[in-house]
Amino acid sequence: MVEINGIEEREIVQWIKKHFNQDDDDLSIGIGDDCASFNTRKGHQTLVSTDTLVENTHFELNWAKPGNLGEKSAAVSLSDIAAMGGQPRYALLNLNLTSSVDKRWIKAYLKGFKNALATCKCVLIGGNVTIAPAGLGFTVTAIGEVKPEHCVTRAGAKPGDAVYVTGTPGDSALGLDLLREKRRSYSTAERKLISRHDSPKPRIGWGQLLASKKIASAMIDISDGVAMDLERVLTTSKVRATIELDRFPLSKESAAIVAKKGETAWRRILGGGEDYELLFTVPPSKQASLDRLIQSGRITATRIGATSKGAPSLRILDHQEADLDIDNYGWTHNLE
Amino acid sequence: MVEINGIEEREIVQWIKKHFNQDDDDLSIGIGDDCASFNTRKGHQTLVSTDTLVENTHFELNWAKPGNLGEKSAAVSLSDIAAMGGQPRYALLNLNLTSSVDKRWIKAYLKGFKNALATCKCVLIGGNVTIAPAGLGFTVTAIGEVKPEHCVTRAGAKPGDAVYVTGTPGDSALGLDLLREKRRSYSTAERKLISRHDSPKPRIGWGQLLASKKIASAMIDISDGVAMDLERVLTTSKVRATIELDRFPLSKESAAIVAKKGETAWRRILGGGEDYELLFTVPPSKQASLDRLIQSGRITATRIGATSKGAPSLRILDHQEADLDIDNYGWTHNLE
Repeated sequence: MVEINGIEEREIVQWIKKHFNQDDDDLSIGIGDDCASFNTRKGHQTLVSTDTLVENTHFELNWAKPGNLGEKSAAVSLSDIAAMGGQPRYALLNLNLTSSVDKRWIKAYLKGFKNALATCKCVLIGGNVTIAPAGLGFTVTAIGEVKPEHCVTRAGAKPGDAVYVTGTPGDSALGLDLLREKRRSYSTAERKLISRHDSPKPRIGWGQLLASKKIASAMIDISDGVAMDLERVLTTSKVRATIELDRFPLSKESAAIVAKKGETAWRRILGGGEDYELLFTVPPSKQASLDRLIQSGRITATRIGATSKGAPSLRILDHQEADLDIDNYGWTHNLE
Repeated sequence: MVEINGIEEREIVQWIKKHFNQDDDDLSIGIGDDCASFNTRKGHQTLVSTDTLVENTHFELNWAKPGNLGEKSAAVSLSDIAAMGGQPRYALLNLNLTSSVDKRWIKAYLKGFKNALATCKCVLIGGNVTIAPAGLGFTVTAIGEVKPEHCVTRAGAKPGDAVYVTGTPGDSALGLDLLREKRRSYSTAERKLISRHDSPKPRIGWGQLLASKKIASAMIDISDGVAMDLERVLTTSKVRATIELDRFPLSKESAAIVAKKGETAWRRILGGGEDYELLFTVPPSKQASLDRLIQSGRITATRIGATSKGAPSLRILDHQEADLDIDNYGWTHNLE
């Protein structure tokens, strides 16, 4: 039992127990024993994913607000459940705290974390609090469920599938660039991009929609940028793809930066990551279903290209339909 | 993708994929997608627990060997599954690496980790690698399964139950004290205590035995010391307990230190923790079954006291049957 800034590990655990709801019919043991324990619903398989945010790698204390960090550390793991078409059920939280934060900061973090879980009815069932000499760290393990027949992996893309992204990927990276300028004030448009970096919303509903209607043949969430995450799909599915900048969905705010900075901005948009939008492929037979969903406003998704037969590789065509050098956009040549 | 000391995150992930077996009939998706996915066996519920070891809080690089750390970081989470009577099935590993370690160190760590999983047929199914500016950290999430009717919590102790521990708790804390002396050489006896700290063995088989034969009414693994972990059981079960030093099982090596240092050694033995032995309570109706298991050598366990009716509290009786001040032994008065 270690104490920093007048806050003890057990005090944080008690605060969590008091403020985080443990009501869940399938949960037989929640916070407070050696393990949590739950039953998987009939006809479902369990999904699990874990991710860590570390100080000065993923965020800096001088610009990251605790509530946003709480929200984001949940979102990055919940987004992985979304990318399989699953429903988040439970979460575990490992807090590595240092003397650079106080009680108020920690509670603000936990409130942001709680809000992110609440949006998808995910229940915190365990975790760990450590007081560390250096390096704030937040590890979130998300546990979800999906019907096996609806589960979407990275491996299902076939030659001739369309490549789609949800929302407007790239906003997050451009928002991060603005944050790093550490300015005193930002315009409304700039603040919008920053909030896309600070408060990403995992696309849980959209993931389930694409999965349950069997529209997506392969799916991934965009954590490391469109180019690298698409590379992961292509490598696993063993297909190639071509995407076109002309088709790429830009937010109004990102389009303004592209107009000013050109290729520099495109490198960040395709290579930056941390959007937590979905990237997915669609077989021709499902194109009409997806079009209907888009037209009815049930999902926001844009076709950015298509897959084709051949060894995994990517072409990015610019506005003159010339090939861009994919190395500049996050393509790594050897992901597996 | 960050690189330190010539090692990249993805290179570590590739090494793990190559060296960690993914064969498991219930595992539908292993390492390499957004989530891992598995089916829970019929008639079982899922157990999950997570723990973090952090540099300079739980270990120091100048005395911790990477292989031992790998083993130990797995053991602390596997031990939580043992304490519920469960069988470990899957693990997730979050590595926070810093420039203070190199490729060789990381591979030695992973080999130790792999060995610990192999002893209980636990399969690594996911995780995360982060290169951090400060603070090595290892978070292991263990996923197990147990039949609901065999699951043992901390809440089941009744007045009149016997209190037992497995093995010889206290060795680990005395071993840590020796490690902290940072001597060039240690005697054979000293090295034995040190190895009890460095390479704890989670009592998975014993936990399952006590659970499946319904011998343990409540159970916990000893991570923070006998006094504090017993406090957790008493608080949750709402009973009090008395334990006696005369009954307490000491290894030959610990007994030698007690003979020399007396009460100072006892404080470490009852208050030190990190033994990952089991502490459990036994109703009178199950005493004979347990005696038979002990006599036949199927489990090593010693009765150290008994519970009684009343508000949760602990008495520790010394060799003259006088009460020791429990505050000196790790009792905290307000665990919940």
